[in-house]
Amino acid sequence: MTAGAVGESVRRVDIEAKVQGRRRYPQDFSLPGMLHAVVVWAGYPHARIRRIDPSEALAVPGVLAVLTHEDVPVNEYGINIYDQPVLASDKVRWLGDRVAVVVAETLRAAERARDLVRVDYEELPIVDDPLEAMRPEATLVHEDRRSNLLKHIYVRRGNVEEGFAAADVIVEGTYHTPFVEHAYLQPEAGLAYIDDEGRVTVICAAQWPHDDLRQIAHALALPLEQVREVVPAVGGAFGGREDISVQILVALAAWRLRRPVKMVWSREESIRGHGKRHPFHMRHRWGATKEGRLTAVEIEAVLDAGAYASTSVPVLENAVSFLAGPYAVPHARIDGYAVYTNNAVTMAMRGFGATQPPVGYELQMDRLAEALGMDPVEIRMRNLLEPGSIAVTGNRMPAVTSARETLRAAALAAGWREEPQGWRRPGASILRASHLRRGIGVACAYKNVGYSFGFDDRSTAIVELALASDGSIQSALVRCAAVEVGQGVTTVLAQLAAQTLGLEVSRVRVALTDTAATPSAGSSSASRHVFMSGNAVVKACRQALEKRDAALREESGATRIVAEATFRGHDVRRTTAYDIVDGHCEPHISYSFGTQIAIVEVDIETGAVQVDRLIAATNAGTPVNPRLCLGQVAGGVHMGVGYALMEEFIQQKGQVRTARLSEYHIPTVADMPRELESIFTEVPDPDGPYGATGLGETPTLPTAPAILNAIHDATGAWITELPATPERVWRALRGVPAQPAAPARRPCP
Amino acid sequence: MTAGAVGESVRRVDIEAKVQGRRRYPQDFSLPGMLHAVVVWAGYPHARIRRIDPSEALAVPGVLAVLTHEDVPVNEYGINIYDQPVLASDKVRWLGDRVAVVVAETLRAAERARDLVRVDYEELPIVDDPLEAMRPEATLVHEDRRSNLLKHIYVRRGNVEEGFAAADVIVEGTYHTPFVEHAYLQPEAGLAYIDDEGRVTVICAAQWPHDDLRQIAHALALPLEQVREVVPAVGGAFGGREDISVQILVALAAWRLRRPVKMVWSREESIRGHGKRHPFHMRHRWGATKEGRLTAVEIEAVLDAGAYASTSVPVLENAVSFLAGPYAVPHARIDGYAVYTNNAVTMAMRGFGATQPPVGYELQMDRLAEALGMDPVEIRMRNLLEPGSIAVTGNRMPAVTSARETLRAAALAAGWREEPQGWRRPGASILRASHLRRGIGVACAYKNVGYSFGFDDRSTAIVELALASDGSIQSALVRCAAVEVGQGVTTVLAQLAAQTLGLEVSRVRVALTDTAATPSAGSSSASRHVFMSGNAVVKACRQALEKRDAALREESGATRIVAEATFRGHDVRRTTAYDIVDGHCEPHISYSFGTQIAIVEVDIETGAVQVDRLIAATNAGTPVNPRLCLGQVAGGVHMGVGYALMEEFIQQKGQVRTARLSEYHIPTVADMPRELESIFTEVPDPDGPYGATGLGETPTLPTAPAILNAIHDATGAWITELPATPERVWRALRGVPAQPAAPARRPCP
Repeated sequence: MTAGAVGESVRRVDIEAKVQGRRRYPQDFSLPGMLHAVVVWAGYPHARIRRIDPSEALAVPGVLAVLTHEDVPVNEYGINIYDQPVLASDKVRWLGDRVAVVVAETLRAAERARDLVRVDYEELPIVDDPLEAMRPEATLVHEDRRSNLLKHIYVRRGNVEEGFAAADVIVEGTYHTPFVEHAYLQPEAGLAYIDDEGRVTVICAAQWPHDDLRQIAHALALPLEQVREVVPAVGGAFGGREDISVQILVALAAWRLRRPVKMVWSREESIRGHGKRHPFHMRHRWGATKEGRLTAVEIEAVLDAGAYASTSVPVLENAVSFLAGPYAVPHARIDGYAVYTNNAVTMAMRGFGATQPPVGYELQMDRLAEALGMDPVEIRMRNLLEPGSIAVTGNRMPAVTSARETLRAAALAAGWREEPQGWRRPGASILRASHLRRGIGVACAYKNVGYSFGFDDRSTAIVELALASDGSIQSALVRCAAVEVGQGVTTVLAQLAAQTLGLEVSRVRVALTDTAATPSAGSSSASRHVFMSGNAVVKACRQALEKRDAALREESGATRIVAEATFRGHDVRRTTAYDIVDGHCEPHISYSFGTQIAIVEVDIETGAVQVDRLIAATNAGTPVNPRLCLGQVAGGVHMGVGYALMEEFIQQKGQVRTARLSEYHIPTVADMPRELESIFTEVPDPDGPYGATGLGETPTLPTAPAILNAIHDATGAWITELPATPERVWRALRGVPAQPAAPARRPCP
Repeated sequence: MTAGAVGESVRRVDIEAKVQGRRRYPQDFSLPGMLHAVVVWAGYPHARIRRIDPSEALAVPGVLAVLTHEDVPVNEYGINIYDQPVLASDKVRWLGDRVAVVVAETLRAAERARDLVRVDYEELPIVDDPLEAMRPEATLVHEDRRSNLLKHIYVRRGNVEEGFAAADVIVEGTYHTPFVEHAYLQPEAGLAYIDDEGRVTVICAAQWPHDDLRQIAHALALPLEQVREVVPAVGGAFGGREDISVQILVALAAWRLRRPVKMVWSREESIRGHGKRHPFHMRHRWGATKEGRLTAVEIEAVLDAGAYASTSVPVLENAVSFLAGPYAVPHARIDGYAVYTNNAVTMAMRGFGATQPPVGYELQMDRLAEALGMDPVEIRMRNLLEPGSIAVTGNRMPAVTSARETLRAAALAAGWREEPQGWRRPGASILRASHLRRGIGVACAYKNVGYSFGFDDRSTAIVELALASDGSIQSALVRCAAVEVGQGVTTVLAQLAAQTLGLEVSRVRVALTDTAATPSAGSSSASRHVFMSGNAVVKACRQALEKRDAALREESGATRIVAEATFRGHDVRRTTAYDIVDGHCEPHISYSFGTQIAIVEVDIETGAVQVDRLIAATNAGTPVNPRLCLGQVAGGVHMGVGYALMEEFIQQKGQVRTARLSEYHIPTVADMPRELESIFTEVPDPDGPYGATGLGETPTLPTAPAILNAIHDATGAWITELPATPERVWRALRGVPAQPAAPARRPCP
């Protein structure tokens, strides 16, 4: 067996350099003659810009330039739609809008000058509630649009009236999820310079460098070949680096001033300046027979897109496909709306539209179970999507799925018993502390792997083999722009190459991502690299072996073999967009499934919730590196616990109330489950490399609803608005409504 | 359905009076003209008494008498053998020996005088180690015996040499369990007086009042009819009240002085003066095939009986029958020895010889599992005694057992999976605290219900029905001397009567135990009352119904029906003593089974062990009162946790080092498992009343070995000497031997 082959928990190939401080993050780079740039941020969440006066700022010694919209060749960018100005010209739409960039010889000079850039604003009424924003009379965030509605996507399946008529019970619920901050360790930073070949080169943390190139080139009106991005070590991403942050700003400054320019955001700038996870307002109405079979679902979801589109449309597309959960439903009416507001831009974040829906659909399942007196595992087992069954979007599920396997594994680990009359939950237990109530909650969830809705997802890898004179492989170099954001993709690609080439993993090197040297692999998102780039690497390795064999047959004496291969998602499953009439589509290339069971203890005196145990059953197909998979589960659960219990990015009238990590709380070690049990169901993905598939996002999805269901099990209270802070739980236990000062929540339109 | 019928968690019938302080415990009683008595305790653990001089004591004003051995008509007592003097005459053999009783008008006078009783001792060499005590040259504790060996009991089954030759692995282990204090809430107390019918009457806490009568009458040389015992509320017993404590002393004083006499022991007197659980020194050698089938066991156990026999012989008999665990073994050589020493008398304590063996046999099972790389549940499943299989003592097990059911239930609740290739343990989990190591441990255990080895176990109940003129039952009174020691037997007997009579439980009254009014029910021990007295009550009720029906047929107009019935254990299964040649016997009437799984966290920095979860699967047949059954489980686990982790009655050279509860630690709430999950497997006992059976002791048995196995699972260290204090665990983790000062442990003989 090859050392480091698939299935082995090989040590991360990048860990030694990181631990020893030798791997550099973007802010660690400097160049001779380097300038410093800082952003002049919008002063209001919604205001007209009457005038920008840089004169005082320019008078500060050392200041070389105050760049404004007038300096941007094509003043627009955006990952999905070009609706965002690089530097605001006529108006600002949120506090994260950038109005100008001050460039100086020193950081100190740049910061002094920033405060002297005079911007004359005319405040505009703000629209900070997506439900208000949808009204015809609402203030427009983008005046060139007819309304603030960015997108409406829907599914019509069967006949919901008929479905509800056939139901023995109907349960309804309204659910709200908050804005969430990515809170990566390393705030945004970048260094741009003109390289030896005359390319504007940006060193920065990114998830999708080749898409950054497109946007930089567009804004600077340069051909793609004249732009380059290099991605060194990245301190976390979680979707928050899929959008442009500093890239165009430093590129613009370096291009204009022909000197290296560096920009480093503070933590507060990072929190104020980059997008967030979408808040969802959801309304659910579900019907089921007394045997627990779903008959109909009616779901509306309103997403706050914030000031600019970012990926709100694809997030909405994803959300609509997942809103009814991994369940078979004959009749469905699902409507999703993405709405512009003057709130923070919302964007990709771990789960990408699949994270919020389980907070609705999994609570609905438990409401149905309660109404029917049915075990929560049993009711899920009766409705789960099977291989080949028809999803709510009308497509047929793949021939291999693992929803049932993950639910079964988690239930067994939690002490459920499968009995002739159905699944039966574990018995009640005695707690030694009388102010604590214990509860157990189940949640299933699923998500796409790879890009969806007709996007031509692909990844390209180049493999270079160094041969000995007898043709044996001495070492291999893998070139593939799959960014290592901390998830371990470099290690996994090295293992897949090692496995395919029959080489020790220590003999495989994976090149750093540099758009000038590594072919496009797509984004480090959508749990896709193991599947997409893994397949590309395996394919390239196989081609390289064939070339090597041919060279041996020809006795060419070649010492170096190069092979390039592209893996296309559409070769596995051709996805399609939502049908305009009924919303039917083939949404996703591939799927990932997970079930979690949370055992919580609720302090009924304070409302504090502690997760005692969390059992996470996840399907990673055949795990390439079980320890790295476990890392994804632990990290996903960490985010899920934060989502469930404490994380909430709060804006009031467009002002940020949680701009520091002392105000925006992410879970510490003490907030994590006292015990985390991770199970990999190991249902191989027939389309994945060696049966492997992605799992980067799935472990985040079931955590919050499992915790909410456990809180209900412990106390009888439904917490339907995240996060379940001690105050919210305390109020729910006592039936005390929220303080009047808090913004009132309205039902969906 | 009758309110309060079998299966309902009826509120304890005695709870209201207890909670309101209306039920009196022995020390709460007083009578006009009552005297106070105190004990003069032995001054040395082993000493000849040269002379007792009470003159100074008698001179204290108010002192009426200093009773010594000369005042005792027949100066011997003992529950099993009359080897104990009521008041020491020629020598004392332990610190708990009583030398004299001072009786005075006031407690103060009695206490003052106690210090003035001059006893002239000649110290003798003490023997405080049972292994030393077995040597031929050892000092004799009882000079009229040839050796200190009280009893040797053995089993020879098959051919162990052959069995070991057939083994693929052999594992050995030496295990030590400590002296354990009963630590009941209420220390010993009693009040004796001459009742209106001239009987010496003792009001005291007791487990077996009719056996107390026998011993009191014997010592006082009175016919049984002239002695009476009344048992009011009892503050715990746990076997510690099966032996005589104050009974003969107060009876003697009242009989001599013809006035009421009261004696109340302090906590320190209680700890010094009453017996303890037997320490066991065990040596095990077990063989198994690579499939995990046991081929042979060789076991030696040495029990420290202390200074007097008490129930050491029946405890030893029980222990030998259980030393190989609930497993089928073709070849066995088992030897048990009970040895006199000058240590505290050892006696009955919850489990009665079945509590110590699992500390050996369950660790042996895990050692075998480890040696074979086999799952600990799987190896047990492969060896468990089945219904009808042959036990190590050569008898056939009953047609219904529940060993497998309890193991299966506990394993499933803990997350084990039954797979085609066998049972598989739950996966490892991540703990948030890095100084903690988590482990999971399994232990099975079993125990007899009712008296064993040929003892003619029986219980008698009288039922009196009050009838209305139409013959319907107005109320019922149950008379049965089954002492309510806190376990809830009164409630359970009331429920069984209610069920049989078709009456609401509120209409059934159970009379307080009074030997003059309630027939003998045997002891509140051996988990026997539900089975024995329950059957007696049901039988008496059925006879009463027949009598009532006959009276109705005869139109006798009777308004009161009385029926008495005796239930004999031998009608279910006739037990026999150990065969003198091979030890074969029919040991027990009936069996109780339990499995526990402990999940512990070991602090590797301090050695402290916290039980995080404990899953207790117990068979109670059809539970008569599930909540009371749960109380037994919680209490049993509490004792088991103390046994495992902290309880140790320490004597050094015959002196007590733990005479206070500040030195002898029992678990507080904070030491209990954070979570206790109790499962009743509900395999009905075909011989029990309505399928019910006893479970008072079984929940204590598996706790300690489950915890020890979990500590091993967490850390790799075997703790083989109880309790697993932080120091012992810390030393085991670091391979640091105990301090030289601590008494060295030697192997078994």
